[in-house]
Amino acid sequence: MNSKQTFQWNEMTMGTCYYPEHWDKSMWKSDLERMLEAGISTIRIAEFAWSKFEPLEGEFTFAFFDEFLELCRKTGMKVIMGTPTATPPAWLTSKYPEVLNRRIDGTVMEHGGRRHYNYNAPIYQELCARIVTKLGEHYGQHPAIVGWQIDNEINCEVNVFYSAADTAAFRKFLQDTYGTLEELNQAWGTTFWNQTYTDWEQVFVPRHTPSGNVNPHLELDYYRFVSESAIRFCRLQTDILRRYVRKGVYITTNGMFGNLDNHKMEKECLDVYTYDSYPSFAYGLDSPSDGEGLGDRQWSRNLNEVRSICPHFGIMEQQSGANGWNNRMEGPAPRPGQLKLWSMQSLAHGADYISYFRWRTCTMGTEIYWHGILDYDSRDNRKLAEVKEFRALQKKLNPICGADYEAAFAVVKDYDNEWDCTVDAWHRRVSYASEQGIFEASELYHTPYDVVYLQKDSELSDLAKYPVLIYPHPSLIREEQTALLKAYTEQGGTLILGCRSGYKDENGQCVQIPQPGLLAELTGTDVPEWTFTSLAEPPVFGSFGEEKMEAPIFNDLMKAGTDVKVLATYDATFYAGTPMLTEHAYGRGKVLHLGTSFSRSNTRQLLQYLGILEPYADMVELPENVELSVRSKDGKQWLFLLNYTSTAQTVTIKKPMTCMDCGKTVEGTFTLEPYGAAVLEC
Amino acid sequence: MNSKQTFQWNEMTMGTCYYPEHWDKSMWKSDLERMLEAGISTIRIAEFAWSKFEPLEGEFTFAFFDEFLELCRKTGMKVIMGTPTATPPAWLTSKYPEVLNRRIDGTVMEHGGRRHYNYNAPIYQELCARIVTKLGEHYGQHPAIVGWQIDNEINCEVNVFYSAADTAAFRKFLQDTYGTLEELNQAWGTTFWNQTYTDWEQVFVPRHTPSGNVNPHLELDYYRFVSESAIRFCRLQTDILRRYVRKGVYITTNGMFGNLDNHKMEKECLDVYTYDSYPSFAYGLDSPSDGEGLGDRQWSRNLNEVRSICPHFGIMEQQSGANGWNNRMEGPAPRPGQLKLWSMQSLAHGADYISYFRWRTCTMGTEIYWHGILDYDSRDNRKLAEVKEFRALQKKLNPICGADYEAAFAVVKDYDNEWDCTVDAWHRRVSYASEQGIFEASELYHTPYDVVYLQKDSELSDLAKYPVLIYPHPSLIREEQTALLKAYTEQGGTLILGCRSGYKDENGQCVQIPQPGLLAELTGTDVPEWTFTSLAEPPVFGSFGEEKMEAPIFNDLMKAGTDVKVLATYDATFYAGTPMLTEHAYGRGKVLHLGTSFSRSNTRQLLQYLGILEPYADMVELPENVELSVRSKDGKQWLFLLNYTSTAQTVTIKKPMTCMDCGKTVEGTFTLEPYGAAVLEC
Amino acid sequence: MNSKQTFQWNEMTMGTCYYPEHWDKSMWKSDLERMLEAGISTIRIAEFAWSKFEPLEGEFTFAFFDEFLELCRKTGMKVIMGTPTATPPAWLTSKYPEVLNRRIDGTVMEHGGRRHYNYNAPIYQELCARIVTKLGEHYGQHPAIVGWQIDNEINCEVNVFYSAADTAAFRKFLQDTYGTLEELNQAWGTTFWNQTYTDWEQVFVPRHTPSGNVNPHLELDYYRFVSESAIRFCRLQTDILRRYVRKGVYITTNGMFGNLDNHKMEKECLDVYTYDSYPSFAYGLDSPSDGEGLGDRQWSRNLNEVRSICPHFGIMEQQSGANGWNNRMEGPAPRPGQLKLWSMQSLAHGADYISYFRWRTCTMGTEIYWHGILDYDSRDNRKLAEVKEFRALQKKLNPICGADYEAAFAVVKDYDNEWDCTVDAWHRRVSYASEQGIFEASELYHTPYDVVYLQKDSELSDLAKYPVLIYPHPSLIREEQTALLKAYTEQGGTLILGCRSGYKDENGQCVQIPQPGLLAELTGTDVPEWTFTSLAEPPVFGSFGEEKMEAPIFNDLMKAGTDVKVLATYDATFYAGTPMLTEHAYGRGKVLHLGTSFSRSNTRQLLQYLGILEPYADMVELPENVELSVRSKDGKQWLFLLNYTSTAQTVTIKKPMTCMDCGKTVEGTFTLEPYGAAVLEC
Repeated sequence: MNSKQTFQWNEMTMGTCYYPEHWDKSMWKSDLERMLEAGISTIRIAEFAWSKFEPLEGEFTFAFFDEFLELCRKTGMKVIMGTPTATPPAWLTSKYPEVLNRRIDGTVMEHGGRRHYNYNAPIYQELCARIVTKLGEHYGQHPAIVGWQIDNEINCEVNVFYSAADTAAFRKFLQDTYGTLEELNQAWGTTFWNQTYTDWEQVFVPRHTPSGNVNPHLELDYYRFVSESAIRFCRLQTDILRRYVRKGVYITTNGMFGNLDNHKMEKECLDVYTYDSYPSFAYGLDSPSDGEGLGDRQWSRNLNEVRSICPHFGIMEQQSGANGWNNRMEGPAPRPGQLKLWSMQSLAHGADYISYFRWRTCTMGTEIYWHGILDYDSRDNRKLAEVKEFRALQKKLNPICGADYEAAFAVVKDYDNEWDCTVDAWHRRVSYASEQGIFEASELYHTPYDVVYLQKDSELSDLAKYPVLIYPHPSLIREEQTALLKAYTEQGGTLILGCRSGYKDENGQCVQIPQPGLLAELTGTDVPEWTFTSLAEPPVFGSFGEEKMEAPIFNDLMKAGTDVKVLATYDATFYAGTPMLTEHAYGRGKVLHLGTSFSRSNTRQLLQYLGILEPYADMVELPENVELSVRSKDGKQWLFLLNYTSTAQTVTIKKPMTCMDCGKTVEGTFTLEPYGAAVLEC
Repeated sequence: MNSKQTFQWNEMTMGTCYYPEHWDKSMWKSDLERMLEAGISTIRIAEFAWSKFEPLEGEFTFAFFDEFLELCRKTGMKVIMGTPTATPPAWLTSKYPEVLNRRIDGTVMEHGGRRHYNYNAPIYQELCARIVTKLGEHYGQHPAIVGWQIDNEINCEVNVFYSAADTAAFRKFLQDTYGTLEELNQAWGTTFWNQTYTDWEQVFVPRHTPSGNVNPHLELDYYRFVSESAIRFCRLQTDILRRYVRKGVYITTNGMFGNLDNHKMEKECLDVYTYDSYPSFAYGLDSPSDGEGLGDRQWSRNLNEVRSICPHFGIMEQQSGANGWNNRMEGPAPRPGQLKLWSMQSLAHGADYISYFRWRTCTMGTEIYWHGILDYDSRDNRKLAEVKEFRALQKKLNPICGADYEAAFAVVKDYDNEWDCTVDAWHRRVSYASEQGIFEASELYHTPYDVVYLQKDSELSDLAKYPVLIYPHPSLIREEQTALLKAYTEQGGTLILGCRSGYKDENGQCVQIPQPGLLAELTGTDVPEWTFTSLAEPPVFGSFGEEKMEAPIFNDLMKAGTDVKVLATYDATFYAGTPMLTEHAYGRGKVLHLGTSFSRSNTRQLLQYLGILEPYADMVELPENVELSVRSKDGKQWLFLLNYTSTAQTVTIKKPMTCMDCGKTVEGTFTLEPYGAAVLEC
Repeated sequence: MNSKQTFQWNEMTMGTCYYPEHWDKSMWKSDLERMLEAGISTIRIAEFAWSKFEPLEGEFTFAFFDEFLELCRKTGMKVIMGTPTATPPAWLTSKYPEVLNRRIDGTVMEHGGRRHYNYNAPIYQELCARIVTKLGEHYGQHPAIVGWQIDNEINCEVNVFYSAADTAAFRKFLQDTYGTLEELNQAWGTTFWNQTYTDWEQVFVPRHTPSGNVNPHLELDYYRFVSESAIRFCRLQTDILRRYVRKGVYITTNGMFGNLDNHKMEKECLDVYTYDSYPSFAYGLDSPSDGEGLGDRQWSRNLNEVRSICPHFGIMEQQSGANGWNNRMEGPAPRPGQLKLWSMQSLAHGADYISYFRWRTCTMGTEIYWHGILDYDSRDNRKLAEVKEFRALQKKLNPICGADYEAAFAVVKDYDNEWDCTVDAWHRRVSYASEQGIFEASELYHTPYDVVYLQKDSELSDLAKYPVLIYPHPSLIREEQTALLKAYTEQGGTLILGCRSGYKDENGQCVQIPQPGLLAELTGTDVPEWTFTSLAEPPVFGSFGEEKMEAPIFNDLMKAGTDVKVLATYDATFYAGTPMLTEHAYGRGKVLHLGTSFSRSNTRQLLQYLGILEPYADMVELPENVELSVRSKDGKQWLFLLNYTSTAQTVTIKKPMTCMDCGKTVEGTFTLEPYGAAVLEC
C-alpha cells in the first residue's frame, strides 16, 4: 500500500449519498432495501445535518440518526458518517456572526446557502470541535459505520476568506513565518509603492485597493495561509475522531478544490481521499466553458490529479443524473450509457469505490435539479437500471481492485507555482494552456501520465519511477527542488522544462541572475530576453527537423551553451533562427528546454522524439476519440477503452485479450458502442 | 362593464403629461390652449411634486397647484392628479433614512433618483398617508380633477426590497401565513442545507449568500410578499382618497411592472388601469435586446397582458418622441407615422384613453432626452402635427369606445408560476421562450389571443368563453386550479399543456408523485423522464403526421395512457419514437399535452390542428408583417390593420368594409402606407 | 517662450526613472555610470518613497537619499525629485483612515496599491504639506536636483472621489459657487424628480441611486469640483516648494489624466508639463481596445493634447519595454526599433526631454512585468542598445529643441463639454467618435493639427493663428466663448461646427431657444429636429457635390437661412434632400455647420474643400501608414516621417532635404525601415 493512504478498498464497492432527513421515515426501509438490491452497499449520510444533532445551542440529540443507523445495521447497509460543519445552523450564525466569511469588499456571506463560515473564528472551531466530539462519542463505535467524511467539499464554492478572524489568524501565520515585520517587509518587497508595515495591526488579508491589485508576495503567502487554515480545520476534526472511532474505520473528505494543499491534507489528516466527479458540467446550457477542451472526457485530467493525492481513491459523489441548481446551471439528462461511462472513467483512473450522488433527487431547496438516481416519484427508472448494469460490470472487475495506473511519463507540479499562477496573470496564461495541451496530447495519442507534486518531503524515488518528467513552467523554484531535479536527471531521467522557468524565488520575487535561474545548470541555456507572442503578428512556429513546431503564447529567446544541442529554432519574428528547443546532457540523463508553452501538437512531437508516444500501440490501435487507461497488478494488465462519443467506435486489438465483461477472448476489430466502455485483460 | 374595472371612458380621449413645476408660469396658459387646440382634453400632473406641497416637514402649501388648477378649470382642461409618493423629498430621506430601500448586498439606494424608498417603513407609510390626506382634503372636490394616479409606476426600476423595514414586514407576513416556525421550516424545506430556523429573528428577506443562491421556497414567498407590500402601499392611498374624491372621479395607477399582482391591485384598489407604452425601446442603440422578437410590435404582447388586468384600459404614457436618459438609453427619433402607429397599437388592443408622455421635453435632470411632443424650443413640430392627425382619427373611432377585443384563444397564466420563473432558471428558460413563441405565432398568423390569469377567485366563466386555452408550463399547480381546469374541459374546452407541468406544489417543492402530478388525470400521460435538449446534439424535431414539429429547449419523455391519442412522436435522440404530443378526451372537451416548449412554428401547427388559426381569413388576407386586431361591440366588428414596416404593405379585403378614416367602402387590394394603420368596420 | 510654460529645455535631453530604494546600495554607482555612458543625464526619483523619509509619524530621516544624491552629485547625474504623496504610508492610512478614498458604493480604497487617498481630508493635506516642507527645506538647494515632480500621475487610476471629506469640500465648493441653496436648486433643476434641497447637509457628492443615475447638473459640477480639488492639492505642494527651491529648478508633474483641467494646473502651478507615453498598450493581450483606431500611432492623439497644455513638453515616462502588472495587462515585448520609434513619436510632437520608465524592471510588487530598459539580471541588452541608438540621433536633433509644431488647423475643446460628455451618453457618443474621426483623417492624410482649449482667459490670438477651427460638438456653450468664436470668424477664420451644437447652458440644462442656440447667429441655421441614426436603417449618407458624404451616428435636421449656402444634403430616410452641411459667411470669415458627427472620411472632404488637406504634399508624398509631423524654428523646418509598420515603407521626397541622421541630402525615393523614423531638414 502506498504511503499516501492508510486505507484502501479490498473490493470494488458501490455506494450512494442518502439524506434520511429529507424523506419521510416511512420511506427509509424501502430505500435501503432497493439500494442493496441494486448493489449499493455503502451510503454517505449526515454531512448537512447539524441541526438534527444540535437543534439549539448545546442541546444534543441523537434519536433521529440512532433510529436510522439501527435500520442500516439491521439491513446490512454500511455507512460513511459526515461531520456536519459545512452548514452551521441558523442559531449559530445568528448568535456568532463572526463565524461568517466575508468577501474582499467586506460584505458578509449570510446564512442561507452553505459554506458561509470561515475556518479561523475561535468560536466556530470550538463549536465544531464540540459537535464532532459528541458525534465521535456517540457513533464512534457504531457497527454500521465504516468511514467518516470531514465537513463537505472543503474549499468548494468559496476558497478565499476575508473575515476579521482570518486577518487575525493571518497575522499569526506571518509572525510564525517571518518573526519580524522587517523580515516580512523584505519578503514582500513592500518598498515598492511604499507599502512598508510598521505595526502588525497594519497587516491584513488582501483588501480592495483602488485598482484591485494586491501585493503579489502578500497574496502568495495568503494562499499558503488559506491552505493551512483549511488543513488545520480538517485536522481539528480528524484529531478528535481518531480518539473515538473503531479500528478499521477510515476518515476521508470529498472533492478536490483550490487554494488547498490536498496532498498535505491527505497525508496529515486522512486515511483515504475521495473525489466528486460531475463530467456532465461539460454539457451545461449556461456554462459551456466548464466543458472546455475535451468535454466530459476532460474530467480524466482531474482524475489524474486525484490519483497523485491518493492512488487508490474513491468517488464520493459520482454523477447520477443531470446537474442543476434552481437559480443557475441547466444541464441535459445524461444519455443512455453515459452514467456507466463516467463511472468507468473514474474506475479506469484508480477509483475502487464509486458512490453516486444521490439516491433520489431532492424535492426542496437549491438542488431540486441536481438529479439523483431516482427521481421525485421514486420509481424504478433508466438511471437505476444503468447503475445496476455498472454494478454487474464492477463486480467482474474485482481483480482490478488495488491495481496501479500505468503512466508513460509524469507532469510535475507544486503548490508554490499553482498559487503563483492565481496571483500572476503572466504565469497563469502559459501554465494553464500548457497543462491543457499536455493533457490533450496524452488523451488523444493514448500516452497516459501521472501527476507528481513536489512537496517538502518529496524524494528521488517519487520521480525516478518515471523515465520522463515534464515540469512545464516552474517560474518559482527553490534550492531543494532544484537539487531533486538534478538528482533525477543524474540517475538517468529526462526532464522537460518550458519557458518562464526559474525566474522567481520562493517569495515570488524575481531573481537577479540570468534565467532560468537555478535551473540554468540543468538546461545549459541562458534566456536574456522574452516576449508574449503578439496578437499583431501571425502565430509563431519553429523548425524541429523537418517538422513545424508550434510556439504559442510566450517565447523565451534562448542562448544555448556550448554543450547544448539545439533541437528546434524559431522561424519567425525578430528572433527567427534562434534556439526554441534545446537538449542538454546532464549526468546519465538529459534536460530539454522548450522556449515556449506546451500545446497538444508540440507535446506530441516531444513525446515522439523521446520514444514514449503511444506505449500500447503494439497492443491496441485506437481512434483519437477513444480514451485508453491501463491498470496493472501482480503482472496482469487491464486496458480500459472508453468511448465518449454518441457513435460506435472501431478499435483494433492486436493481441488476444480477455473481455472482462463478456469473458471472451477478443482480437482484431472490436466495436465500442456509443458511450461504451470495455476492459480487456492481457 | 366588466367587473375588473369600475370606471370606463365613454368616449375616445386624448391626454398628455404636464409638469407645471418645470416651466415658467408665463408658459402655462399658452401650453393649455395649444393642448386643447390639438385635441388634448386631459393632463396628468403632480406625481413628482411632493416638495411643492410640503416643502419642509409638516409645512403644507397648495398655492402653486391651486393657481395652476384654477387655470385648468378656466380653460376647460381636465386633470388627473398624481400622489407624489414616488419621490420622497430630500428632507424626508435625510431625516428618516430608514425609508430608503437597500440592495441585496446591503447598500443604500440614496436620494437623487426616484423610487428610492421601501413600502414597509412605518414612518414612510405615515408621511405618505398624511400628504395624500392633505391632497384629498384640498383637491378631492376640485372640479377640474377627473381622476387620480397613485404614486408613479409602482415597482418600476426597483421591484426588490431589502431594507430592515422589509425584513420586519416579511416576518409579519410569514407569521400570518404560517403561524409557527415549524410550519415555515416545513414549507421552505429548510432541512436542506441545514437552514432550519429556531427564532423569527433568524428569518430575513433574501440575503447575499456565498454563491448568491437563496432558498427557492423562501424566495417564492418573498415575491408574494413584495407584491402584497406594494398593493398595501397602494391601498393605503386609495382608501384615503376615496374618502375625499368627488363621485365619478376615478383612481388609477400607471405602468405594469414585475413582482406585483396587478390583477389584485386593480381589483382591490383601482377603478381603472393605465399602462405606459414605449415601443421605441425596440430601437435603442444601447439595448437592442429590449426589442427582441418583433421589435416595436412586441409591445402588443404587453398590451395583451394589460387587457387581462382591465379590458378597457388607458395609456397614461404613450411614447411621443425618442426616449433616453442622460446616462444611458440612446434612441433614434420615431419615424413619421410611428407615433400614430403606436397610438393605434394601443387603441387596437383596448385603450380608450391615450395620453402622451410628455407635452414638452424636459430641459433639466435625467430625462432631457425623454422627448415629449414639443421640444425644448416649444415650437410647433412634426410630432405635434402627428398627434393632431391621430386625434382626428381617434375621434372617428368613437363608436369603438368600450368595444371588446376578440380573441381566438387564451393563454393561461398565474402569479405563482410567474414568480417561480423568477426563482427557477429551469422553469424560466422554457416559460419565457414559450410565451414568446405563442405571441409570435399569434401575431404573424393573425390569431389574436387574450391572457387569463388564474386567481384565487377565478371562475369557470372566466375560462369558458374561450374554445382553447394554452397553459404553457404550469410547473406549480394547486388543487383549486386543477379543479377549474377540469371543469373547463368537462364543459367542452380544449386545454393545451406543455412540458414541465405539475411537478411542484404551492411552495415550489417537487411533488413525489408521477408527473404531470395533479394534471395527470387531465392529460392521461405519465412523464417518468425529462431532459433539456443538449447543445451537443442537433435540434430535436418530432413527426406530427406528415409534418415536422419543433421540440425545442426541453423534452418531457411521455407515456400515453390507453385512452390517449399520440399526435406526434419525437424523431431523434434516445427517445425517438416516443410520444411528443398527445390528446386526451376529457368530459366534453380534450387535453393536448405537448412534451416540449412552444415555438412560433409548433404553436402555429397546434392552432391549425384545432381549427382556430387565422379566424379572419375569410375577411382579410394579410402578410406576416401586418398585425390584425379586432374589437367588437353591439354586433359590429372593427378590424385594425397595423403596418410596422417602413415599406407599404398590400392586403386583400375579401368582403366590403368601411374605412373608418376615409369613410369609403373598401374591398380587394388595399395598401397600408409605411407605418400605416387602417380601421375597417364590417 | 510660450506663456504656458516658464521652463523649457535648451537641449534635447534623455533621462530615466530610478528607484534607489529598490536596489542594493552596491548597485547604485554602477547603475549611474552605465546610465551616463548611455546618454542618460537626468533621473527621476523618490515619488513613492514617503516611508524612506518619514518611517514613523513625525520621525524624519534623510540619510538614505542624502547618500544617493551625493553619489549623483559626484557622478554628475541630474535629478528630478518626486514628492512622495501618491502613496501614503501604512502608518498614515492606518491611523487616519479618513484620508482613504471611497467608491461611489461607499467601499473603502484600502492601503496596498497606490493613489488610495482623497485630496480633501484636512489631515492628509496637513501631512502632505509637512513632508513636502521637510523635503523642500532639506533638498531645495541640492546641486544635483534640477527639477521636482509633484505627486505621481495625478488623477491616474482613480479620478472620482466619494469620501466624507469630499462631500464636505463639495458643499464648500458649491457654497462658493452658488451662495444659496435656492441658486443651487435652480442651477441643478432639482424640481425634476423632486430633488430639491432644503439644507446643505442633504447635499452629497454623487451617490448610488436606484438606477445609478445622478442629477446631471450636480454631476457636471462634481467633475469641476474634482478638478479643482486636484489642482488645489497640487498647488498646496508647489506653493511650499517654491519657497525652498534653487532658482532655475523647475516644478512639474507627469501624466495626463481625466477629470482634471490640466491647462489650469499647468498655468497656475507648474513650470513645465510632462507626459507618460506607453504606446505599447495597443498590443496588450487582455485589452486590445486600448489600441483602438491606429494602434500605437494612436498615442499621437494624446501628444497633440499634451502640446496644447505645454508646447515644449517632456516625457517623464517613455515606454522602455513590455508593460504589465502581475494581475492584469499582458503585453508582448516591443519589436526592434519600436522603442526608438515611440521616442521619436514623442519628439516629433514636441518633447524635448525624454525619460524612460524605468532603468531596470522591478523584481517585486505589482509591476514586475512593467519592463524597464534593463531586465532583472542587469545585463546589457537589446533595449539598452536601442536607447543608445536613440540618444545618438537625439543629439543630432539638438537644433530642433524648442522648435514649434506646425498645424494646418486646430480642434477646439473645452472642459465644460469634455465633462458633459462624461455625464451625458448622447453627447459622448457623437463627441468621442468625432474626435477620433478627425484625428484619423489628420494622421492618414498628413494634415497635422493642434488642440486649443477654450479657457476663461482664452484670447482671440490663441485662435487667430489657425486658418480653420473645428469645434466638433459644443453642446454646452457660454456667451464668452460665443463672443470669441464670433471675433475669430469676423477676422477671417473658418469655423466648423458639428451636430448637437449649442443646446445646453453652462449648467448643462437645455436652452429653450431654437438650436444651435447662441451659435445660431454664426451658423445661420435652425435645427428644429434631430435623431440618432437608427440601427434599423442603413447608414446615412449625404450628397456633397458629386461625392457621397458620411453622416454617421447623429443627424441634425437643419433649415438654412436665406444667406446660407447648402453644401451637402442628406440622401436618405425621412429627411432626404434637406441640408446636411451649410456654409455661412460671417465677417471676413465663414462658418460651416455639419449636421452630423465627424468621421475619417467626411473630415477629409471638409479639409479638402477648405484647401488645407495635405499641406506638405509639394514636399513629400507619403503612404497612409507613415505619420508626418513638422517642427520649425528660426525659418527652418524639420519633417518627421514615422513608420509604425513592420514592413519597409517607400516615400517620395519632392525637394532636396537633409537627413538629420546621416547628414546626406535626400531626394526622390526614400525608404523607411520597419518601425523606422527619419527627420529631414529643409
